[in-house]
Amino acid sequence: MKLEIHETPIAVPGFLFAGVACGIKPSGKADLALIVSDVPAVAAGVVTRNRVKAAPVQLVVPRLAAGRAQAIVINGGNANACTGAAGMQVARAACAQVAEGLGIDEAAVLPCSTGKIGVVLPAEPMRRGVAAALAALGDDGFWSAARAIMTTDAFPKVGTRRVRVGGTTVTVAAMAKGAGMIAPDMATLLVMVATDAKIPAPALRAFVRAAVATSFNAISVDGDCSTNDTVLMLANGVAGNRTFAPASADGRRFQAALSGLLAELADMVVADGEGATKRMRITVAGARTVADARRAARAIGESQLVKTALYGGDPNWGRIACAAGYAGVPLDADRLSVTIAGVPVLARGVPASPAVVRRAARGMRGDAVDVAVDLAAGGRATASFAASDLTPAYVKFNSDYST
Amino acid sequence: MKLEIHETPIAVPGFLFAGVACGIKPSGKADLALIVSDVPAVAAGVVTRNRVKAAPVQLVVPRLAAGRAQAIVINGGNANACTGAAGMQVARAACAQVAEGLGIDEAAVLPCSTGKIGVVLPAEPMRRGVAAALAALGDDGFWSAARAIMTTDAFPKVGTRRVRVGGTTVTVAAMAKGAGMIAPDMATLLVMVATDAKIPAPALRAFVRAAVATSFNAISVDGDCSTNDTVLMLANGVAGNRTFAPASADGRRFQAALSGLLAELADMVVADGEGATKRMRITVAGARTVADARRAARAIGESQLVKTALYGGDPNWGRIACAAGYAGVPLDADRLSVTIAGVPVLARGVPASPAVVRRAARGMRGDAVDVAVDLAAGGRATASFAASDLTPAYVKFNSDYST
Repeated sequence: MKLEIHETPIAVPGFLFAGVACGIKPSGKADLALIVSDVPAVAAGVVTRNRVKAAPVQLVVPRLAAGRAQAIVINGGNANACTGAAGMQVARAACAQVAEGLGIDEAAVLPCSTGKIGVVLPAEPMRRGVAAALAALGDDGFWSAARAIMTTDAFPKVGTRRVRVGGTTVTVAAMAKGAGMIAPDMATLLVMVATDAKIPAPALRAFVRAAVATSFNAISVDGDCSTNDTVLMLANGVAGNRTFAPASADGRRFQAALSGLLAELADMVVADGEGATKRMRITVAGARTVADARRAARAIGESQLVKTALYGGDPNWGRIACAAGYAGVPLDADRLSVTIAGVPVLARGVPASPAVVRRAARGMRGDAVDVAVDLAAGGRATASFAASDLTPAYVKFNSDYST
Repeated sequence: MKLEIHETPIAVPGFLFAGVACGIKPSGKADLALIVSDVPAVAAGVVTRNRVKAAPVQLVVPRLAAGRAQAIVINGGNANACTGAAGMQVARAACAQVAEGLGIDEAAVLPCSTGKIGVVLPAEPMRRGVAAALAALGDDGFWSAARAIMTTDAFPKVGTRRVRVGGTTVTVAAMAKGAGMIAPDMATLLVMVATDAKIPAPALRAFVRAAVATSFNAISVDGDCSTNDTVLMLANGVAGNRTFAPASADGRRFQAALSGLLAELADMVVADGEGATKRMRITVAGARTVADARRAARAIGESQLVKTALYGGDPNWGRIACAAGYAGVPLDADRLSVTIAGVPVLARGVPASPAVVRRAARGMRGDAVDVAVDLAAGGRATASFAASDLTPAYVKFNSDYST
């Protein structure tokens, strides 16, 4: 899949960015990014639920709990996961060096790593990289930082929103990396969001969690949840807006902007899925609860059989119904409906004619396919999920072994 | 993978079997099997948890609850799932015809179907098939029946045990079919077990559930749970043994025989997994509970990244540790151990040297690989899980679309 990237300049008032190459990636590509707020910022985030957490994730969790931070340091090429005390020491050293360079507290620095699992992050390239990034910081460094956090991503994933809240217009900018969990063991989805809005910590946490639930927690390339997945958001308040309640009109507008932005980036991650040739957006309706709708949509999006059918352009509603069936949520199997590419292939339990199914097959020729399922469970809850197809290229990419 | 099949004659006292071709499969291969006990038998079984249940599964559930049956009629080539009232009518008619032919109650006939989803089972071939099977019944028909329940299976899967219980020796024979959920939408794992042992219904249920938990519920080809999965067991008591308690020495011996038999067939299903070139047996130890150990083993066995690494012969312990980590069970990430093909690649949190990892890679060249994981969670519970690799052939097989 190809997406054209226009590098429109991105700036967020009161933020500096840098992306440099320090030699962690053998390719010599940019592999260290730094994001710094001029002033202490409110911080919120979400980290992987994996019990095997990389060293930087272990550091981020207590620092996020404090709700304040001023810098994020991110390296590519090495996940610093399953690396014990040695890995922890390198992660701490990078934070200390950033803190010293900026004259801030070490606990105000949030570290992230992405890349190979099980190899200790080398100390010397990191030290050089942090020094170079500190020197390179600028208000025009957003794209450089976004490129430095890429691993096997085919393109940088960035987006921005401007939204009026608390009497003024604020900027929200986000960068993401991720294309599945990657060969030989590249780990991670990373998402960094910066805004100049003034938002208290409890509200920022709520905004981030709600936006992640409908974006990065609603996509699948291969269903593997990595040791490093991290979403971080800094809000530095430089815009000088009046604070606003999440439940107010301003709060809803901000949530819509943030959720829309993260959903856009999540779609880019799916489009860039390893070996992917097509993606599908699955919308489940007629569920009793949103949680039920999400579970069904996710079961469909993660089914290997649905994903191979998507690859083959096969409007195989039997596999979709089957995946909904094993999701463990209430549904009426006799009144289930499935629509593929806008064509009803199963209508309230009645299969469509072969001619209609052929029409759905034609609708699957594009690289984005909409799949809609009505569970007929007696409710009106809906949810949506995006997934890539499962292709021979994915298997090849993830089975190549090189030592 | 190739397994050589020697068709050693299989007979179970008091049982007749038949397998015939009736034209449901366009290939003209055998597609209808009949299993009949001379006398009413005790029946127990396990069916799919999928909420979308095929018509025959819907009929089997209440009949199993009664705990008695005398015949099983199985068709291949058509799953009779998502087929509404029309599909239910054909399933009932087949049962009625079997019952009439044998002079037994219709409720004593258990129907099973396997094959395409969403196409009503054609009535006329079924009628001809049941008539032919009734005429072909014989005590030497076990292999014919086992071949008739195959769909895309490369070979029939059968096994037997002889075990001394209640003062006499009884026979247990089983046949299985299944190779993943199959293109374009072939559904199902079916397992039929016949024994001449005399076992009361509650005990038979307990024996079957325990044996299924460690066999067919502990394997994965692609993680999709079909609309038709069914395990049925008939015990006709013809052996004349004294009844025995499940907790007695005889009970433990019977359980061991049945569990061993079903595990053997489950391994054959994995070996015959669609597109599979290798299989792995994952053993998880050091868990707090057996349920935890099973969840971790299953997460590893179903991980696309672990399965592609198996295909590539890559001793990628990072992916294994990662999958254990997202299984949602307690583990000590700093003291995790992983052994691949007998080689310790991660020992109490310490990664092995590249030379040791290369040794593990050499150990992965065969078609069966042992993976052992110690969760170091402070418990001694263990569980085992078998899985096939994920290959380009699997993707190709399941994405080919033909109308």
